[in-house]
Amino acid sequence: MASSPHWVFPEPDAGAAGAARARQDALTKPRGSLGALEDLAVTLAGIQGGPPASRPAAAVLFAADHPVTRHGVSAYPAEVTAAMVANFVRGGAAASVLCRHLGVELRVVDVGVAHPYERVDRDLAGAGALLRRDPVADDPIFDLRVEDALSEAVYERALRAGAAEIDALGGDTRVVLLGEMGIGNTTAAAAMTALLLGLAPEDVVGAGTGVAGDALSRKIEVVRDAVRRVARADPRSVVRAVGGKEIAALVGAMARAIERRMAVLVDGFIVSAAALALVQMAPGARAGMIFAHRSAERGHARILSALGARPLLDLEMRLGEASAALAALPLLDAACALHAGMATFESARVPDRAQPGTP
Amino acid sequence: MASSPHWVFPEPDAGAAGAARARQDALTKPRGSLGALEDLAVTLAGIQGGPPASRPAAAVLFAADHPVTRHGVSAYPAEVTAAMVANFVRGGAAASVLCRHLGVELRVVDVGVAHPYERVDRDLAGAGALLRRDPVADDPIFDLRVEDALSEAVYERALRAGAAEIDALGGDTRVVLLGEMGIGNTTAAAAMTALLLGLAPEDVVGAGTGVAGDALSRKIEVVRDAVRRVARADPRSVVRAVGGKEIAALVGAMARAIERRMAVLVDGFIVSAAALALVQMAPGARAGMIFAHRSAERGHARILSALGARPLLDLEMRLGEASAALAALPLLDAACALHAGMATFESARVPDRAQPGTP
Repeated sequence: MASSPHWVFPEPDAGAAGAARARQDALTKPRGSLGALEDLAVTLAGIQGGPPASRPAAAVLFAADHPVTRHGVSAYPAEVTAAMVANFVRGGAAASVLCRHLGVELRVVDVGVAHPYERVDRDLAGAGALLRRDPVADDPIFDLRVEDALSEAVYERALRAGAAEIDALGGDTRVVLLGEMGIGNTTAAAAMTALLLGLAPEDVVGAGTGVAGDALSRKIEVVRDAVRRVARADPRSVVRAVGGKEIAALVGAMARAIERRMAVLVDGFIVSAAALALVQMAPGARAGMIFAHRSAERGHARILSALGARPLLDLEMRLGEASAALAALPLLDAACALHAGMATFESARVPDRAQPGTP
Repeated sequence: MASSPHWVFPEPDAGAAGAARARQDALTKPRGSLGALEDLAVTLAGIQGGPPASRPAAAVLFAADHPVTRHGVSAYPAEVTAAMVANFVRGGAAASVLCRHLGVELRVVDVGVAHPYERVDRDLAGAGALLRRDPVADDPIFDLRVEDALSEAVYERALRAGAAEIDALGGDTRVVLLGEMGIGNTTAAAAMTALLLGLAPEDVVGAGTGVAGDALSRKIEVVRDAVRRVARADPRSVVRAVGGKEIAALVGAMARAIERRMAVLVDGFIVSAAALALVQMAPGARAGMIFAHRSAERGHARILSALGARPLLDLEMRLGEASAALAALPLLDAACALHAGMATFESARVPDRAQPGTP
């Protein structure tokens, strides 16, 4: 069996976090009155080991297909994965629009898209995404309902594909937004969540791209078969057995970003399932993660609860492609701008709190 | 008795809202998968009567003092209102930083700041706020615990001061973020909320700038006395009797913005109390409002519930000065960017949903 990388995750920097908290307490506002925006500044400082920064930020999406779609678990045909890859590059997808709007670099890594996609060139204005096809894309993946999705070797290569993409980012990148595209991958994430948290399929299977009725029942049955087949397993085996190449790549990317003290802004259900697996493998990873959004997808609330995560947004989004992380990024921007730009009571000569006992 | 303005609020534009919903359904994402961001685009289109737009946006803060602070209801001395006005203009307050960061014009209107503030000039880079002292600032205000805060005439002048500031905005302004600064005004807002919704003082009084223990008990007693004094009253009389000049100005500004089809992005507890009073006076105003945030302030949840509002954010903020509206503005920006910029299934040649029955 190939050995997984030996991850060494940094502890949060207590000095940097303490300095950020002290500064927050000196700014011209009642202490604590910026709520989660204050905590965000302090958390970022701890992760990054210095004054909190939300930029440069990069969005990295991993795309792959899932043979499990043969059971009719999605409202969309599997060809959509490939079509959306072309859409990312041309700049028409939600992630493309938000990256352009927010000035965030968008990178798409094909780690297993089964259908050919149109050759598309990124326009010269940089409107769309940089696309890379990783060699792991040509490796086999199997139907998670009946056999392990990934071999040991493919799992390891997918992990490394994820880490490699982080290493390709500029070293000054401070926040990484991870996302995915893969028709069928809410089925994979639901099976992972059921196995990692010991939950019933009914409690973790949601509408995904929009299934209901018979299709939803089929999806639950597929997850039930996968869970029965794998039974109890360590988190690494869960990703291998019922995950997928883009999910393994997310685990590898997340781990590498956290090792490098880049804050990871976690998107929705799929990325959170990868985060849960990573934290179960290596609990030290948790401190490097910030959760963007509580997805409308059923299993997500269970993952957030297991990770003790209170996400920044709750907007009933369920799209993936880092769209919720991109929606939340302006809150990190605001938190950092306030932290750096507000006056202190002393500098602004604003009277601070009345002394206790003074009316 | 002076007559209140006869407000005529436009109905939401059903054609524009319908066109926005149809476009949302054609964009390359599962229908509904952008959640509240889709609804935001449709709501803005209905309010504005055309394609949704979040810019130009302007933030307008009304500042005033409250004689009720003599009872020790705030953790800060009343001089802080004046000091914060100077801080807004110099660019050091939270609202200043966020406006600069987001490219939003910040206007501060002194409608009753009791203490002198430093003469400050807005720096040439436009880092801070435009400040105007409205003549109503020199009118008297009384202690709401023992007598009506505003006379009929002062109430009317404060309403008009608010409307005038909206009329001073560029006619192309699409979103107005309203905010306030006034030591003591959570006490006024709590008394308003208790009267408008028939609630007990304990259910609407919160920590404000950070009071606890004896000070919190005093604050509850003050609100109890005010509520007992006024008993039942129409919403106009409630604003006059226990509100304040900045709160009446908020009512006037909100009404004028809605008349002009500018979307009003409602900040926290104080602005929501003004919104509640306005909606009770003229229910047609409700459709022009978008609620930014669920404040940590106790009475706010009751107001949101009474108005059937689901705010965009829930970040435990409790600062005022439009800071929560400013934190939410990027969600409007994102909603509008996605609406305008995403490809449709047809334009991107992405296969749409499988036909029902197809696996």
